Amino acid sequence: MIAVTTSPRGRVLEVGAMGTPLAINGERLLSSVHALAELGAYVDERTGLVGVNRLALTDADRAGRERVKGWFEAAGLEVRVDRVGNVYGRRAGAEALAPVIAGSHIDSVPTGGRYDGALGVLAALEVVRTLNDRGVTTRRPLEIAFFTDEEGARFGTDMLGSAVACGRIPLADAYALTDETGVTVRDELARIGFLGEHDERVSPPRAYVELHIEQGPVLADAGLELGVVTGVQAISWLELTLVGKFAHAGTTPMTLRRDAGLVAARVNVRLHEMATSGRYGAQMRATMGRVKPVPNRVNIVPGRVICTVDLRNPEDDAMAAAEAELTAFLEELSKQSGVSIAVKQTAKTARVRFDAGVQSIIAGHARAAGLSHAPIQSGAGHDAQEFAAICPTGMIFVPGEFDGISHNPRERSTPESCIHGANILLRTLLELADAA
Amino acid sequence: MIAVTTSPRGRVLEVGAMGTPLAINGERLLSSVHALAELGAYVDERTGLVGVNRLALTDADRAGRERVKGWFEAAGLEVRVDRVGNVYGRRAGAEALAPVIAGSHIDSVPTGGRYDGALGVLAALEVVRTLNDRGVTTRRPLEIAFFTDEEGARFGTDMLGSAVACGRIPLADAYALTDETGVTVRDELARIGFLGEHDERVSPPRAYVELHIEQGPVLADAGLELGVVTGVQAISWLELTLVGKFAHAGTTPMTLRRDAGLVAARVNVRLHEMATSGRYGAQMRATMGRVKPVPNRVNIVPGRVICTVDLRNPEDDAMAAAEAELTAFLEELSKQSGVSIAVKQTAKTARVRFDAGVQSIIAGHARAAGLSHAPIQSGAGHDAQEFAAICPTGMIFVPGEFDGISHNPRERSTPESCIHGANILLRTLLELADAA
Repeated sequence: MIAVTTSPRGRVLEVGAMGTPLAINGERLLSSVHALAELGAYVDERTGLVGVNRLALTDADRAGRERVKGWFEAAGLEVRVDRVGNVYGRRAGAEALAPVIAGSHIDSVPTGGRYDGALGVLAALEVVRTLNDRGVTTRRPLEIAFFTDEEGARFGTDMLGSAVACGRIPLADAYALTDETGVTVRDELARIGFLGEHDERVSPPRAYVELHIEQGPVLADAGLELGVVTGVQAISWLELTLVGKFAHAGTTPMTLRRDAGLVAARVNVRLHEMATSGRYGAQMRATMGRVKPVPNRVNIVPGRVICTVDLRNPEDDAMAAAEAELTAFLEELSKQSGVSIAVKQTAKTARVRFDAGVQSIIAGHARAAGLSHAPIQSGAGHDAQEFAAICPTGMIFVPGEFDGISHNPRERSTPESCIHGANILLRTLLELADAA
Repeated sequence: MIAVTTSPRGRVLEVGAMGTPLAINGERLLSSVHALAELGAYVDERTGLVGVNRLALTDADRAGRERVKGWFEAAGLEVRVDRVGNVYGRRAGAEALAPVIAGSHIDSVPTGGRYDGALGVLAALEVVRTLNDRGVTTRRPLEIAFFTDEEGARFGTDMLGSAVACGRIPLADAYALTDETGVTVRDELARIGFLGEHDERVSPPRAYVELHIEQGPVLADAGLELGVVTGVQAISWLELTLVGKFAHAGTTPMTLRRDAGLVAARVNVRLHEMATSGRYGAQMRATMGRVKPVPNRVNIVPGRVICTVDLRNPEDDAMAAAEAELTAFLEELSKQSGVSIAVKQTAKTARVRFDAGVQSIIAGHARAAGLSHAPIQSGAGHDAQEFAAICPTGMIFVPGEFDGISHNPRERSTPESCIHGANILLRTLLELADAA
């Protein structure tokens, strides 16, 4: 998948280093990243590392939102909050044309790092600050944005804010989502002061561009400095509720059991077999990330298990075939084991292809800056995939350290990677904002 | 294993119904069971059933202890609390001989029922009340008792109090055990006022007898009214800590994963295969009751899992062979998967055989009362197994409803079963207490 583009290296970290191209202020970018990471910071007990816990619409998220919104205002942007809590900052252009938008998210998973989402938002902010410093006026307006609950870690639906903005999820459905304690999105938006009055549907911009850490090992493994994202693979999430029979582990003969934990284990083993078989291509991925047996005690056969399935495939057809095999397997397994299996689809997105023109612009600037780069498909979902439905869209990936670990306090991109990514974002936005 | 003994039915529920044999007051027994169940009672949200949550040394356990201790005192018993919180009530005999002890426990698992343990303690109390009513003096003293933390559900070591009393576990080791929050057994005993002053080591009694619900489906399946327990099968508990690598489910190729959840699933599947293969006899049982993936999220490959293994076998040799197969499998699996597997033995007891003479006395009274009965091996551990190391010991099982479900609000024995069991306990204790 990865074709390495080699080119002469001409690193552009500061304005003037190469003479011509405009460049962001790397120190300012990084100090913003670290300042935002203070909000929701926590110390991982096992490792002593500092992570970020900024679940959507919590007090920590409110604090993060207020800080970033304050920075938007300080950068002279015209800030608006929409009805689903998405925050946009607008920098006027020379002409009254559709804007170019750059955005991402600032919410995190409970055990998150400081780059996921935040890097994209703060790099976009750094672009604005740089244009302000240099007195550059673009032809089109430039908008930077952060979207509500991209992670889906609290209310169960990822890309929530951008999906509402781009029309996939109706506002009323988003409002009605609840967290584990039964609190709704609408109530939490109101509570933290981010239930805005602006139309939640965004007018199609000229283009949308998002910088993000890769959150995977591919770029680092290939020794690449930048990824030009071709699209997002198809994603299917299932929540399985397995109901068998509670039984005492010491007194219940094996033949009289209906062990929901064993059925979950068989599903996990089958998922791995499916994903590594080659039947669905070399890029099939399948994961059982959650397993919750009840009552979860050493000497009780679990009578009930909730577990999850995460399927990914770059091709919709292969995904559909994998889903069909899994469904048939679950039916057979349920019959054989006497354990009922209820399947709930908790997320489902088709493959998304990003705009070839935007990819070409990103690749052109990477090449000009002498950065090794290649096309890469995103394994994770991103706000950009929602915008791909309404406008030409592209994404820039920078590599992560430590095998690209993410959703973890160890998540890290080097300062060089962050700065490279932000510079390519800057030049891509400039080119798009000056386009007809 | 079960040989049904059929005999003419002559139910003895009340004194005088058959003329001769002494019988307990069934109504009083059951009202004590239900009164104790009020302490620690909780409503299961899913079913609306009322269960018992009386974890050892909690406030609920304290309340239960105080109520039962009060009943002991009201029955004229000389009550003593030992240094590990075991509570004994002594009824003097005509001669200064070693006593006969009848006991069980009143602590419960977090999702327990009202019969497990409590039935044995309260039936023993009912025996004393009956002897008081009838003015019966036994030759030997009779002691009734409840032992600390039989379940091991809070401090991780089951049969704790009886194991200390009978010398298997040193007092200092018991004191040092901690619950999940780090609180010690000793501190909790002191806090709830049950850190007694009496010697924790019990003088070997003439015999020990315990009535208990079966907690399994065997008696009910065979249509039997009573089980004469032959012993307790060998038990081995392991806690496995699996450490692989956290990874994003969307971005990490299958080949770069070290999935601790998948490894736990493979262990579970292998356990089932081992237990049903016949390699370790028809009575081998193996269960993975707990599985705790970290971070337990739909889109993260679990980097760490704690899970448990519960092995049971009626024969020590077969158990040892099963443990050896599992150990070899874990080593192979760890190599193959790149996931480290640390094994901690959390419980291990060899097969226990109960005294043939006590079994014969129990069976004789069951036969005389016209109760269908058979020898049965206990699948669960009980306080009686500790006493088997120091004196002739026996147990009486009564069947449970609903496939013998236990450790669950649905746990139930019929009033008839409870009364039958208590009557056989009464007559067995009388015979043993009058013996030389």
